[in-house]
Amino acid sequence: MSTIADLGEFGLIARLTHDLAPRPDVILGVGDDAAVLDVGSAADVLVATCDAQVADTHFRLDRATPEEIGRRALAVNASDCAAMGAAPRFALLSLLVPPTLEVAVLDGIYAGLRAEAARYGCAIVGGNIARHPERLILDITLLGLAPRGHVLRRHGARPGDALLVTGTVGAAAAGLALLDDPALVARLAPEVCAPLLAAQRTPVARVAAGQWLARNGATAALDVSDGLAADLAHLCAASGVGATVEVAALPILPATRAVASAIARAASDLALFGGEDYELLFTAPAAHAAALCAGLLTTTGTPATIIGTITAEPALVRVDDGQRTTLVGRGWDHLRAPNF
Amino acid sequence: MSTIADLGEFGLIARLTHDLAPRPDVILGVGDDAAVLDVGSAADVLVATCDAQVADTHFRLDRATPEEIGRRALAVNASDCAAMGAAPRFALLSLLVPPTLEVAVLDGIYAGLRAEAARYGCAIVGGNIARHPERLILDITLLGLAPRGHVLRRHGARPGDALLVTGTVGAAAAGLALLDDPALVARLAPEVCAPLLAAQRTPVARVAAGQWLARNGATAALDVSDGLAADLAHLCAASGVGATVEVAALPILPATRAVASAIARAASDLALFGGEDYELLFTAPAAHAAALCAGLLTTTGTPATIIGTITAEPALVRVDDGQRTTLVGRGWDHLRAPNF
Repeated sequence: MSTIADLGEFGLIARLTHDLAPRPDVILGVGDDAAVLDVGSAADVLVATCDAQVADTHFRLDRATPEEIGRRALAVNASDCAAMGAAPRFALLSLLVPPTLEVAVLDGIYAGLRAEAARYGCAIVGGNIARHPERLILDITLLGLAPRGHVLRRHGARPGDALLVTGTVGAAAAGLALLDDPALVARLAPEVCAPLLAAQRTPVARVAAGQWLARNGATAALDVSDGLAADLAHLCAASGVGATVEVAALPILPATRAVASAIARAASDLALFGGEDYELLFTAPAAHAAALCAGLLTTTGTPATIIGTITAEPALVRVDDGQRTTLVGRGWDHLRAPNF
Repeated sequence: MSTIADLGEFGLIARLTHDLAPRPDVILGVGDDAAVLDVGSAADVLVATCDAQVADTHFRLDRATPEEIGRRALAVNASDCAAMGAAPRFALLSLLVPPTLEVAVLDGIYAGLRAEAARYGCAIVGGNIARHPERLILDITLLGLAPRGHVLRRHGARPGDALLVTGTVGAAAAGLALLDDPALVARLAPEVCAPLLAAQRTPVARVAAGQWLARNGATAALDVSDGLAADLAHLCAASGVGATVEVAALPILPATRAVASAIARAASDLALFGGEDYELLFTAPAAHAAALCAGLLTTTGTPATIIGTITAEPALVRVDDGQRTTLVGRGWDHLRAPNF
């Protein structure tokens, strides 16, 4: 008999959801960063997403403060809203708590949730608290609003479009490497470590950027959670296209390169396969891509970089020093990967 | 340092949520069966609730089929919508799964979720699947719509109102007693056990009844999840009133009485303190209560019974053979109660 681990996350989702019936009020169901729902508003659609953070799988109480854990749990959900071009508005928190947990820890987590929600103009409106025999779990449902006709999707990328990413990639993976090896932190300068640890512990969702891109001609988008290569594979599969990625163009912090060098890995590996950056990976008509970057930066303060091109041929190609090789869409599969 | 168990569920909720800032689009935040949100529709408001079911705490894979577990997880959330007078519309499922779980179990759970969602006209629109080292958890967020101005709340009960409950109470607790003692099942007739086991394993949310009551003069309502006495205490606290409960009037199935007798407990104990009945406990002006029961039954097929009176004095009183004693609002506290 087959187990969950045999199928993997995406196989399981496909198996469970392949025959859900379409409905006129479900504008978009399973298969994007969030569901898009018609709730009777003439101006807006509702965007709904949820994500669970499990102690010792997604966070560790000995590696971040309770406040940081709360902030991160809210931010990863806000990032799914951002990827749809929606403004996060309401959060529901389902808490599963071991009875022996100190209340001070929960106070800190809740303070972090509230601070991060406030950053995006989102209110915590309810939830549920239940007992869990051994493990703290934060499961957040985020509801956002997006203007009708301006929802960012994964499926609109067209051959010839430019491929872009906001901010930098690989920093969260470099931060994770630092958390895995405290001796490394001791060897590197604090100004190298601090931004990488922050990228891992307290990512910030690109909410303003997502809303702006949805209104200004981005053709497809998702957020980089599983890893740039894996998320690009999702975007291309949804759009029925392929892509070429220029490795030299990847926006990678000098600090990320310093850590990559210290752990004897290519910085591009961290950027392509690391995941958890919560940047937006998006596409736009090539002729407008440079102007889009400029407008995004001046309007929202968010930098973006052209890193490749969408192709008709449905394959992922990496170009590295003029060498073209297949970019394997490997990344994080939540049901197969070992714990970290 | 204090732990979660010291505070209890309601103490913890109060501690975490006491200073959430009010917002015009949050019509009702923490403190009722669900949040009520303004999402820009002129006709409707959005009702949002979530509830987690944890293996070995809220369900056991050796005590119900996977399909029953899925049905129940959806129904308990639909019951929170029902208690607000809302129609469940959209469900998000956050699944936490151990990698060794057989896929067939998840197939069954999902089939149950879908069947139960279809019963209420609700669509499964998305969710999340994450790895959990050892335990299956189903966390569901349910979104419903209710007409503006017709949302049922806990806080509208007035002195002199009649106190009513739909269906029967105590059956789920009697069903739990049967699950706890298979020898008891062998001793009792199948027609005694079947409805009680069904009440425990596959409760049905009173969705049509809740919508009808919201439009036809019920003054306050909630669903009976923690136990009639405990839930009545919540309703009275929210309304700033008290209540008198006529024990002889409690609607209790003969089968529930048979189990109570077999385990040497008063049937009224199961009815008042058992919980998990997912019936609606509600109030209405006394002069209209009988007509309301008749209208509810003929319109929605749901029976209701007058079981007491709302009082100005903020105390809970039980009347038993003419004897008036204090009705202690004890029931299920999810963070203090032992596992079953």
